Amino acid sequence: MSTVKLVAENTMNPRVRAVFDDIKATKQIDRIPNIWRALATHPEHLELCWTRLKAIMRPGKLDMLTKEIIALAVSVTNGCEYCINSHTAAVQKLGLDNEGLGEVLAVVGLYNQMNRLADAYQVEPDILPKVE
Amino acid sequence: MSTVKLVAENTMNPRVRAVFDDIKATKQIDRIPNIWRALATHPEHLELCWTRLKAIMRPGKLDMLTKEIIALAVSVTNGCEYCINSHTAAVQKLGLDNEGLGEVLAVVGLYNQMNRLADAYQVEPDILPKVE
Amino acid sequence: MSTVKLVAENTMNPRVRAVFDDIKATKQIDRIPNIWRALATHPEHLELCWTRLKAIMRPGKLDMLTKEIIALAVSVTNGCEYCINSHTAAVQKLGLDNEGLGEVLAVVGLYNQMNRLADAYQVEPDILPKVE
Amino acid sequence: MSTVKLVAENTMNPRVRAVFDDIKATKQIDRIPNIWRALATHPEHLELCWTRLKAIMRPGKLDMLTKEIIALAVSVTNGCEYCINSHTAAVQKLGLDNEGLGEVLAVVGLYNQMNRLADAYQVEPDILPKVE
Amino acid sequence: MSTVKLVAENTMNPRVRAVFDDIKATKQIDRIPNIWRALATHPEHLELCWTRLKAIMRPGKLDMLTKEIIALAVSVTNGCEYCINSHTAAVQKLGLDNEGLGEVLAVVGLYNQMNRLADAYQVEPDILPKVE
Amino acid sequence: MSTVKLVAENTMNPRVRAVFDDIKATKQIDRIPNIWRALATHPEHLELCWTRLKAIMRPGKLDMLTKEIIALAVSVTNGCEYCINSHTAAVQKLGLDNEGLGEVLAVVGLYNQMNRLADAYQVEPDILPKVE
Repeated sequence: MSTVKLVAENTMNPRVRAVFDDIKATKQIDRIPNIWRALATHPEHLELCWTRLKAIMRPGKLDMLTKEIIALAVSVTNGCEYCINSHTAAVQKLGLDNEGLGEVLAVVGLYNQMNRLADAYQVEPDILPKVE
Repeated sequence: MSTVKLVAENTMNPRVRAVFDDIKATKQIDRIPNIWRALATHPEHLELCWTRLKAIMRPGKLDMLTKEIIALAVSVTNGCEYCINSHTAAVQKLGLDNEGLGEVLAVVGLYNQMNRLADAYQVEPDILPKVE
Repeated sequence: MSTVKLVAENTMNPRVRAVFDDIKATKQIDRIPNIWRALATHPEHLELCWTRLKAIMRPGKLDMLTKEIIALAVSVTNGCEYCINSHTAAVQKLGLDNEGLGEVLAVVGLYNQMNRLADAYQVEPDILPKVE
Repeated sequence: MSTVKLVAENTMNPRVRAVFDDIKATKQIDRIPNIWRALATHPEHLELCWTRLKAIMRPGKLDMLTKEIIALAVSVTNGCEYCINSHTAAVQKLGLDNEGLGEVLAVVGLYNQMNRLADAYQVEPDILPKVE
Repeated sequence: MSTVKLVAENTMNPRVRAVFDDIKATKQIDRIPNIWRALATHPEHLELCWTRLKAIMRPGKLDMLTKEIIALAVSVTNGCEYCINSHTAAVQKLGLDNEGLGEVLAVVGLYNQMNRLADAYQVEPDILPKVE
Repeated sequence: MSTVKLVAENTMNPRVRAVFDDIKATKQIDRIPNIWRALATHPEHLELCWTRLKAIMRPGKLDMLTKEIIALAVSVTNGCEYCINSHTAAVQKLGLDNEGLGEVLAVVGLYNQMNRLADAYQVEPDILPKVE
């Protein structure tokens, strides 16, 4: 159960309402995900989070599927249940099937292992060429 | 300084030598990265790690750049210096410029933040459609 | 469900009973929180944990609200559900309202992001003045 | 060594320059910390990060020392060297002496321990009163 | 609820079936643990994971109880609920009683604390003798 | 460089001196490791940390090598450089050779991977027998 009472979707707070409306329009969804209803208990923070997420999570040099795959890789590495659930659904909606999902997770699992081995042996960075 | 003495590239151990040769051929590089020279202190583990990495890090449903981006996202989230150094060089070699790198890291930073907020408010997962 | 059977509040083990009584008296509560009932399966460890927590979690240079805020920030960063639940309740009991809680979490979220970006770019520490 | 070439403080990029000038004015410092010079390789991301940090890291319900203490607690829990260095200097500059710093870290250490114990025993959350 | 539909134990996929049979024979169990049924959605990854786990989780220089204790220490530090549950059961099955489990967790808790304190003070490594 | 000035080994502070002397006698070493000299900037916290570590890190149900292996597994999973260095030296001093060390790290790497996969697929715990 969430630690704060989730703000109702039809709240009368104009600042929150504007963000909620923008979330629905931008993501083309009918219901406000719970995370935004929790963040709405502090309207200014809600705005800051949404504005930034909206600016970052749009196609740029990377397409949306790649961005959602990164979001999933981070969420899995941090073990965040809510976010794993939501970003798994997102990559599936963008067309990644179970085989593709398995590939993503194979890479995530592999480097969670390799990261620890590199740390464990305190391996010094290789001298690598650098792009400017 | 590494916690074990790195195995020399020209080691006479045949098991290690076979892996070292395969690493050079597969990655088309002239020098063995330090992590493999550390793992070589336990030849069986070296084989297990390399065989698996080789099986996963090849083009499949995902292309190599996407796989290296995932490796970087995981390494950054875990704060592994050696791996960040090596996977940053890998994505750059595969053509990602500083703007693309900035986009990757913007998404990584964003979800390291959002993961904690979802955990903090103990938000329950939304009911989402599932692909079978 | 906990991995061990929680020790009953009215246990006859004198060592455990002494700690349980001190917890109730110190925290002015009527029920023993579940974590202490789990730790009581190893009475010596229970004593070590409680003695140390009691020595640290009292007003000193920092007041209790600040200490509970730190406890919450750590618990959120580690994603510990039990602890997030318990320290959120603690800061609320000490008077922090939803706006204050939102501020705490905004800072926690911000630095979970910034930590990863500093690691990602492998930024070297700035030269800063040091207090002796 | 950073993975990208740090942008020079006197860069001619107007977008970056505007942020750099605002950082100096807001923080009342003469030099741009390295993290901002790294982020400047992606000017839009630099703006997003700085705008948000500036909005959060100012006195509100919490004073600046408390906010910097939270930043330090998060950075220590994540093991981010750059950030630990910078936020330790920040709390010292705001007047926290070694005894106060020791208290902060005692609480951080304590809950990194307790978080793991609560997870280890899979303790179920206590039923606690909730503030609305 | 798992993010993918778990593969049935009696699946007709020959590659998956071979791994499932080997898991039952090796671990001397009647039912396939859920993690393997999830991994089976990507048969090649299932094989890679099982082959490697089987090669590592057998008596060598270390006995099985020590290996399961390490698995538990890692799982607790990462806060992985599924794995904590499964490795706690494994060490108990291998004979560790609640007092022994308490000792393991005392060490795990202690070093989660000490790790953060060493990071917090940015203590430089001591000069220690090294075994070659 | 450490964030505080390390307390000199021959400090005149009696509280610190008593702990330093006990560390030398208990560990049979001639020099105080840097972590204790950093903690000594807050004598009460130094005492709390040392007293507890001394009570936990002695032979009990588990022998010292197993306890140091757990300490290493935790330190690697957290990526703490100072602690990895110190606990690697400790297990080597207690007789673990490079092959044994490789086995420890193989298990640590394996479960850092498996933990993330179990989280990623949000696998529900298996129903397992429980020891009381």
